[in-house]
Amino acid sequence: MKNKQSYQWNEMTMGTCYYPEHWDKALWARDLDRMKEIGISTIRIGEFAWSKIEPEEGRFTFAFFDEFLDLCVEKGMKVIFGTPTATPPAWLTEKYPEVLNCNHDGRPYYHGGRRHYNYNSLIYQHLSARIVEQEASRYAPHPAVVGWQIDNELNCEIGEFYSKADSDAFRLWARDTYDTLDALNEAWGTAFWNQTYTAWDQIYVPRPGNPGGVNPHMYLDYYRFISDSAIRYCKMQADIIRKYKKPGDFITTNGKFRNLDNHRMAREQLDVFTYDNYPNFAHGVDDTVRPNLLDRHWAKNLTEVRSVCPHFGFMEQQAGAGSWVSRMLAPSPRPGQMSLWAMMSVAHGSDFVSFFRWRTCVMGTEIYWHGILDYDDRDNRRVAELKDFYKKLKALDPVCGAEYTAAFGLLKDYDNDWDTNVDSWHRRFLEHSEEEIFVAAEVNHTPYNIINIRDDSSVEELAPYPVLFYPHPTLINEARVAVLRAYVEQGGTLILGCRSGYKDMTGRCVMMPQPGLLQALTGSNVTDFTFTSPEEEPVWADWDGQKLETPIFNDILTPLEGTRVLASYANNYYAGAAALTERRVDKGRVLHLGSTFSRENVRQLLAYIGVLEPFAGLVDAPETVDVIQREKDGRRFLFLLNYLPQAAEITLKQPGILLYTGERVEGSYSIPAYGTAVFEV
Amino acid sequence: MKNKQSYQWNEMTMGTCYYPEHWDKALWARDLDRMKEIGISTIRIGEFAWSKIEPEEGRFTFAFFDEFLDLCVEKGMKVIFGTPTATPPAWLTEKYPEVLNCNHDGRPYYHGGRRHYNYNSLIYQHLSARIVEQEASRYAPHPAVVGWQIDNELNCEIGEFYSKADSDAFRLWARDTYDTLDALNEAWGTAFWNQTYTAWDQIYVPRPGNPGGVNPHMYLDYYRFISDSAIRYCKMQADIIRKYKKPGDFITTNGKFRNLDNHRMAREQLDVFTYDNYPNFAHGVDDTVRPNLLDRHWAKNLTEVRSVCPHFGFMEQQAGAGSWVSRMLAPSPRPGQMSLWAMMSVAHGSDFVSFFRWRTCVMGTEIYWHGILDYDDRDNRRVAELKDFYKKLKALDPVCGAEYTAAFGLLKDYDNDWDTNVDSWHRRFLEHSEEEIFVAAEVNHTPYNIINIRDDSSVEELAPYPVLFYPHPTLINEARVAVLRAYVEQGGTLILGCRSGYKDMTGRCVMMPQPGLLQALTGSNVTDFTFTSPEEEPVWADWDGQKLETPIFNDILTPLEGTRVLASYANNYYAGAAALTERRVDKGRVLHLGSTFSRENVRQLLAYIGVLEPFAGLVDAPETVDVIQREKDGRRFLFLLNYLPQAAEITLKQPGILLYTGERVEGSYSIPAYGTAVFEV
Amino acid sequence: MKNKQSYQWNEMTMGTCYYPEHWDKALWARDLDRMKEIGISTIRIGEFAWSKIEPEEGRFTFAFFDEFLDLCVEKGMKVIFGTPTATPPAWLTEKYPEVLNCNHDGRPYYHGGRRHYNYNSLIYQHLSARIVEQEASRYAPHPAVVGWQIDNELNCEIGEFYSKADSDAFRLWARDTYDTLDALNEAWGTAFWNQTYTAWDQIYVPRPGNPGGVNPHMYLDYYRFISDSAIRYCKMQADIIRKYKKPGDFITTNGKFRNLDNHRMAREQLDVFTYDNYPNFAHGVDDTVRPNLLDRHWAKNLTEVRSVCPHFGFMEQQAGAGSWVSRMLAPSPRPGQMSLWAMMSVAHGSDFVSFFRWRTCVMGTEIYWHGILDYDDRDNRRVAELKDFYKKLKALDPVCGAEYTAAFGLLKDYDNDWDTNVDSWHRRFLEHSEEEIFVAAEVNHTPYNIINIRDDSSVEELAPYPVLFYPHPTLINEARVAVLRAYVEQGGTLILGCRSGYKDMTGRCVMMPQPGLLQALTGSNVTDFTFTSPEEEPVWADWDGQKLETPIFNDILTPLEGTRVLASYANNYYAGAAALTERRVDKGRVLHLGSTFSRENVRQLLAYIGVLEPFAGLVDAPETVDVIQREKDGRRFLFLLNYLPQAAEITLKQPGILLYTGERVEGSYSIPAYGTAVFEV
Repeated sequence: MKNKQSYQWNEMTMGTCYYPEHWDKALWARDLDRMKEIGISTIRIGEFAWSKIEPEEGRFTFAFFDEFLDLCVEKGMKVIFGTPTATPPAWLTEKYPEVLNCNHDGRPYYHGGRRHYNYNSLIYQHLSARIVEQEASRYAPHPAVVGWQIDNELNCEIGEFYSKADSDAFRLWARDTYDTLDALNEAWGTAFWNQTYTAWDQIYVPRPGNPGGVNPHMYLDYYRFISDSAIRYCKMQADIIRKYKKPGDFITTNGKFRNLDNHRMAREQLDVFTYDNYPNFAHGVDDTVRPNLLDRHWAKNLTEVRSVCPHFGFMEQQAGAGSWVSRMLAPSPRPGQMSLWAMMSVAHGSDFVSFFRWRTCVMGTEIYWHGILDYDDRDNRRVAELKDFYKKLKALDPVCGAEYTAAFGLLKDYDNDWDTNVDSWHRRFLEHSEEEIFVAAEVNHTPYNIINIRDDSSVEELAPYPVLFYPHPTLINEARVAVLRAYVEQGGTLILGCRSGYKDMTGRCVMMPQPGLLQALTGSNVTDFTFTSPEEEPVWADWDGQKLETPIFNDILTPLEGTRVLASYANNYYAGAAALTERRVDKGRVLHLGSTFSRENVRQLLAYIGVLEPFAGLVDAPETVDVIQREKDGRRFLFLLNYLPQAAEITLKQPGILLYTGERVEGSYSIPAYGTAVFEV
Repeated sequence: MKNKQSYQWNEMTMGTCYYPEHWDKALWARDLDRMKEIGISTIRIGEFAWSKIEPEEGRFTFAFFDEFLDLCVEKGMKVIFGTPTATPPAWLTEKYPEVLNCNHDGRPYYHGGRRHYNYNSLIYQHLSARIVEQEASRYAPHPAVVGWQIDNELNCEIGEFYSKADSDAFRLWARDTYDTLDALNEAWGTAFWNQTYTAWDQIYVPRPGNPGGVNPHMYLDYYRFISDSAIRYCKMQADIIRKYKKPGDFITTNGKFRNLDNHRMAREQLDVFTYDNYPNFAHGVDDTVRPNLLDRHWAKNLTEVRSVCPHFGFMEQQAGAGSWVSRMLAPSPRPGQMSLWAMMSVAHGSDFVSFFRWRTCVMGTEIYWHGILDYDDRDNRRVAELKDFYKKLKALDPVCGAEYTAAFGLLKDYDNDWDTNVDSWHRRFLEHSEEEIFVAAEVNHTPYNIINIRDDSSVEELAPYPVLFYPHPTLINEARVAVLRAYVEQGGTLILGCRSGYKDMTGRCVMMPQPGLLQALTGSNVTDFTFTSPEEEPVWADWDGQKLETPIFNDILTPLEGTRVLASYANNYYAGAAALTERRVDKGRVLHLGSTFSRENVRQLLAYIGVLEPFAGLVDAPETVDVIQREKDGRRFLFLLNYLPQAAEITLKQPGILLYTGERVEGSYSIPAYGTAVFEV
Repeated sequence: MKNKQSYQWNEMTMGTCYYPEHWDKALWARDLDRMKEIGISTIRIGEFAWSKIEPEEGRFTFAFFDEFLDLCVEKGMKVIFGTPTATPPAWLTEKYPEVLNCNHDGRPYYHGGRRHYNYNSLIYQHLSARIVEQEASRYAPHPAVVGWQIDNELNCEIGEFYSKADSDAFRLWARDTYDTLDALNEAWGTAFWNQTYTAWDQIYVPRPGNPGGVNPHMYLDYYRFISDSAIRYCKMQADIIRKYKKPGDFITTNGKFRNLDNHRMAREQLDVFTYDNYPNFAHGVDDTVRPNLLDRHWAKNLTEVRSVCPHFGFMEQQAGAGSWVSRMLAPSPRPGQMSLWAMMSVAHGSDFVSFFRWRTCVMGTEIYWHGILDYDDRDNRRVAELKDFYKKLKALDPVCGAEYTAAFGLLKDYDNDWDTNVDSWHRRFLEHSEEEIFVAAEVNHTPYNIINIRDDSSVEELAPYPVLFYPHPTLINEARVAVLRAYVEQGGTLILGCRSGYKDMTGRCVMMPQPGLLQALTGSNVTDFTFTSPEEEPVWADWDGQKLETPIFNDILTPLEGTRVLASYANNYYAGAAALTERRVDKGRVLHLGSTFSRENVRQLLAYIGVLEPFAGLVDAPETVDVIQREKDGRRFLFLLNYLPQAAEITLKQPGILLYTGERVEGSYSIPAYGTAVFEV
């Protein structure tokens, strides 16, 4: 089922994150005035302020936020109110230590940080519900409030749960899921290593054991359980807020973290999804690993967020140098980068950009997550840049609500994703291929969407894409094969990589010729397979005289009758065997590549299918410039983003209107260092 | 005392590991038929199947294995039955958590993996004895059964024990060993850092303390205690099985793991020793360290196993790509490698080769330890290779029971071995020297045996070797010096390296001129010593104009009267001092090298003594081909093993019969990539 | 307040560390005779010998040390007696486990090592006081005893404390410090992430939480608390000893470890401070990181020790190869190095050099910390070297009590130091700048002193230095600014680096233009700042045509009126902005560098101020030779230390008397490999 969103911004909107509890009240009015002056119309507040409302158990006090929200009304500032459950008060965890999450060893995470609670303790659920009820009943009707953020960054930093409450809940989850221990033993393959469970009490969340000697089927269910726990906790809060919120106000949460089915959460619980965007991590000066394409790599995340919610917002957009006091050192964003990253967000589909945060906090873990203002509270170059950005943003109002243009689709699903948490073979393929498909799309200006595939996916969701990559659908079932078949039959091209279809949905391997259930689609037969060896010459295949990279792992393919061999391995002991096959299925076709994907073989496949560089007729831009299009009501808006510290020269092959200025441009155009341009074409 | 074995195979035998509990019963008969067709005559079963026999505490059920064993009789398949104690049932560890082993921090290893129990908990000993009694009394008389495997891989993965049961047992062990606390305090040197124990209750297995601030004498005893605990646990099972087993059936266990006196265990408890051989670890594609000579490095392990039991078996011989789901990624064995590794086992003395495993498991931690068959159950290239291998193996029946031919001996003992667990100086010498001696032997085609030296070793065990290396006998006592002296006096050549003889058997340093008790043999005096420094030029010595490497550490030697200086240091502050001395002792001699051993100085020493390249008159083979000889009743069988992906050219200097075909060969002969040849010469 | 010491040696004194409890009594007399023969007149004993005096709780026995001390009187050996509290007896920690320190996870450190106790358990305080009372009352009057060492190496190895006793004490410390929870909440910035404390029971020493999500203000107080705890524990012992000690005998402790205000401890509790010096760590052969300048890097530590106590002693001076049995492998000191390192100590201000240790211990963790003698007890090259060193040392008697000559000063304070424990930004600047200032001083022969700055520092302490570096006074307050101002006004030159003055003493950031309270002194304004990026060209500044390095971090400076710009950034987005400013303040001036310090920019600054190479008129020595001067009563003593394995050629520009021989030297002079020379000039 495709995600629909029940809330959308109707004009480009700029915001910031503000913490009234961090500052002397004397600063409030001036802060709001200065925000308004820059163009900020919406602020998020309250998401770490439990103690301001419930300073001791069961005693509630509203004076603080009453005063602040009334001031917001006076100043014309709109407010997104955050529920405060990410940071329980000291009195709470001291009195009820069972609410604490634990590490894998069973040692609690204590007070002093954030996200140290677990979703499953009954008392925490009760106390959370009560504070949300108090806040929502009081402030949802308030005229300043326009939306609600649930908790803060669910599953951020800590996405695994090992408390006693979690074991208790997992036991119930397992019983609900399997009904009988026989069914559970079968699903978890407990005949292996004598793991058979004979009483429900023997079930726990994963505990330390023989290092690495883990049950992958149990782990897979564990991650499903974690996701379900987080969503149930989110639902509990959403249900309360929905009772009180004004019509037109929205419920959201921020961030997209691991071990969480963000698609389901957004679809079932949220009106709109928001994201926290920090591309400056790519420029860290400590031992950070620098990603491919540096800050531009965040486009991968934005593509994933767009899959959750096409017209998302940015709750936290990086506004300054960032780090915790204890780790993650990075330079200040260079002049232009803050606007570049914000415009990158808009290009990818966001119509709301809220900067983190108004003023750099003078205390605590995040004294180095710099806001728009520094500690000294003076206007600075970032304020100046933001004013300029705001002008550009408002010039993009026609783009609000426009759709991102994708040349192809990438299929992803949570089952395969979570399987890679514990399966090191699977992880090695999937991470590599998804990364390489991303890089190929970027450097070839061939944008893509991610489509989340599930048992109830419909062919209507897939049909818009002429081609779909599903790199390594290791786990697959009949329902998903059926929708893939329907997609192909109506004319689509499906491309699969190595190791497809050798597991069922429990993560157990199927006793069928590979690619298992997918074989009827691929018309291919995996007769042998191997990792490629670092000791040997890289393996490649010959595709009509072209060299086709076949890295990491090789399925040695045999075509079934009616299947065409496009490329054959050129070396190693399986030289001559099929490496890439194609099978027509009704109006469409299925390609089966025996290896992982690389940026080069993806380029060749996109060219073969004819979807490479869809904007080549509109603009000629260097590889280092991102080219993105949004379209609405027949109007097309072309975003050009320059991530480099040098100006970039592009050529518009058709005339376009530069939205920032209204100026008509054709032919050569220069985008400044870290600069952007948006043309209507 | 030299290890004798009470069981030997009387013909070359091929087997596999089979898990009836993993598969639908419908597959059993066909599986057995297919095995027989390939040449497999023996299978191992049952070693992780406790729950199949005791599904709840005290309730025993035999229907499952009755049915399977009866089928084996029908199909003519012989069975090695494994006791199931490596993986206790979930009900057991849930009810009796005291049976769990703990990590050094005292945190238990929980259910879900294997080997998470400890040897010392009384209840686990009781429950283990009961399940073994039940199995042995039922199945030892069964006509299908030919042997028993105790537990699985004792001390594998986890070879240290820190549970309360272990502390309790260690306290008793210490009291048995020392009788009084005064004696213990003396042996453990507790005057240092005020460690003096004044009550037995103060004794524990090692617990976390000041990092690195460990008592090495206590640790040394701890490892002796671990070994004793494992052997006592093995004995408990062996005693039970021996009551029931048929005459001619054997008791074994598999694997050779750390902190365990395998020699004593084999001699006292087992009829024959078996090993699990996985040379493909050398080709891992993750962060595996690649050993010297890659897969050929496993020859070092096989030499060690042969020391435990000259005519051992292979219980698990690698049959496919291998890894756990969570780690250890490796390519599939290349065509030929599976046979190569199996033939390497035979060359080193094995007359039984059982492949791990019949079919790749479709569930659990080991879905990537590939068996002969893949998940899809189809015949594949490995089945074909195995059929070919079986023909070759049966052509080697004359070799069954033949002895491995060694040109020299290497002395090893457990006390020095375990001392290196905690002594980082000692570890640095010993690991380096043993590795280099191995490499020198391999690349110079000069095979060796390992001789385990102990207080009751006899000169008869040593006398067959013209030369013995004892690289760094740091711990030594009068009994061992006496047997070394007897060996030398009857004509042997003993070669010692740096740091010999400076500790007693408690690991305390002796207040004698070094090499301590060995000085009467070496006739040398260590007047100064030092690590060589990475900042300085490598130190070397001059040996009659030849450069002799003296790496890692240097004892600066002074010859006593009657001792000859063979080589003197050529640089550093001790240039001119003796680096290598030789002393005649009756009919033999003792060489004392002031440094560690290197592949180059070992080659020089072997040449000096005249044992280098014993097969040079038979065959001319490149360094990359392994040359191994087994001999029996005056017949000599020459194994040539090619580990490389290219064919290797060798020259037979005397005619030989290629056993695989019966063909007569002389002069040039080509061994294919990953190929082998066995000639009778 | 400058540290005064109440004890000074009145002649050059040589000692060693001796452990009578490690050796047969039969060795004692001969050992003492041999020591005397070498020149050793003082030994330290007893610091790990609790059980020798209190073998069981409350039973005291003195026969052992009575006998030994009487022998010392007989042999004319002076004794420093160590209290034994670093290693509690086994019976103590077994009976009272609450005395054990714990790691951050709360897991105890157990018996077997050392320093596994905590300072705050009441029972440990009680039992420590009792053993010290027993020892001091018995032995302080003893004629052999000349001084007392408290405990051993307070805070060594383990400098953090996480036991329950520590939490209990920290709670009281916090209450004493802040009086109210409101004040504590304000100081700790608990409004951030809802950390507000509402009961004292919620206060603990740091516990594990969200990884890295730490409260830096709480941590800063925690380190203050650790220091206070150690000093209070030291005071408890000093108070007892002072009751009994003979007039003229001294109280000391050894070592200078982290999280401890050594200046306050020395000033308030000790008569003299001693240090343990192991430069051979620099030559480790394992994975040790090799410091700048290798063993010569220990000059940095010696400079720090001199700051604590100008005429310190060396309680442990490296005498041989060193390591624990479990880690830290190093070669033997090369001939000459032992003397070189000892003379380096004397050059830096020590008048007492006690070698660690008499004879290498034959048991326990430290069998590889080699003493003067080896296990074999024979005279060796180190004994010979020591005899030679003793002659040289006694020739330096005129130097005893002489002052070290410093060309400039470096300001340090504990608040900033401890802030870097948790603040990774701050750590990155401060460690880099202090290291580079040290290296610049060494290679340019421009010695410096470290001055500990505190709230009660006086201008008299600072005035002797023409120039003071205070690289990154991130935390600063009015009191410290006042003394800096007074220093400058009377004519001093103060040099500050980037990131000055942006925090208050709680570690909270100040809402003022940077450099905050220091702005009135610097006359500069930080308008922007950033880490330099590894992706960009290194940033540098132009200083009148000279290139000035500005590494790691850049404050972009704006001069206030009256401030002169000395250098401006030459590249990056702030090219042209001020990088180095100078402001006259009364008779002095303040320089503000926008970056960290580098060895090259420090050299340029020292040259600009005119203090570079103060001995250039006396001696011409290569960079690799250390040049140090001590002076007393108008006499000047020039130490030249050659750390290299080759002889070094120097030129005396004025005639000098070589103290070792009395010979007059002028012009060329050669210092042998690892050699030293001391001239009176």
